[in-house]
Amino acid sequence: MTGILLITHQGLGESLVECVRHVMGNVPDNLKVLSVMADEDTQRKEKEGRALIAQMDSGAGVLILADMFGATPSNIARRLRQPGHVEVVAGVNLPMLLRAVCYREQPLAELVQKALQGGRECIVLMGKEDDSNVATGCADN
Amino acid sequence: MTGILLITHQGLGESLVECVRHVMGNVPDNLKVLSVMADEDTQRKEKEGRALIAQMDSGAGVLILADMFGATPSNIARRLRQPGHVEVVAGVNLPMLLRAVCYREQPLAELVQKALQGGRECIVLMGKEDDSNVATGCADN
Repeated sequence: MTGILLITHQGLGESLVECVRHVMGNVPDNLKVLSVMADEDTQRKEKEGRALIAQMDSGAGVLILADMFGATPSNIARRLRQPGHVEVVAGVNLPMLLRAVCYREQPLAELVQKALQGGRECIVLMGKEDDSNVATGCADN
Repeated sequence: MTGILLITHQGLGESLVECVRHVMGNVPDNLKVLSVMADEDTQRKEKEGRALIAQMDSGAGVLILADMFGATPSNIARRLRQPGHVEVVAGVNLPMLLRAVCYREQPLAELVQKALQGGRECIVLMGKEDDSNVATGCADN
């Protein structure tokens, strides 16, 4: 089963995991957070990230979800990337995370696509005229 | 100036605001959070939301950013919607929030589009081959 590692500014990853707990009733073992504080030693964080990945990787690889491309957490995530085995999607939102958790038994390449789609499709302007489409887009959350 | 109101599961909105503080160095006055705990009285929350909107609305309206379409916070947000004056975008991520904060002096209709674009465009698979495009997509964060 693919591991899912959130790498975010401090607090955000933990909050997202609490939302998973609320929505799904529990937090899967293979969902972890690497939280990055302001002015933290990024090399130390990278080392912590490698240790977490080694611990989570059952052979199926790890999907890293970072909060924002170009920020420190995503720069750390980029250095942890192993093409085809540890992939990084930036711009995580709650629908993306839930989609990834729901499909974590799929191969990493497919899980990456599910995460990208889940995140993008569930960014919607709410209004009576949109809701039938939106419900379809987000149905598997 | 348009107000920005995050309506999320407890903890997530506050964490996103802390990320804004970290990235931008401060939190604008017209950015607020309505945090929804599990099993909270949604009618009371809706009332709190109306009070917050009244407080934040300088005439330019309010953009509500909810964490996930179909979840309780977005259902509360839907009931606070006033088409053209209080609009709701669901699926908030950090790039969307930062984009909205940066463009909050624009009219609400344009701010809605900036938020949708910012959120969607900055959901990216990280890899050497993508980064030049991504940097453009997220350049104004």
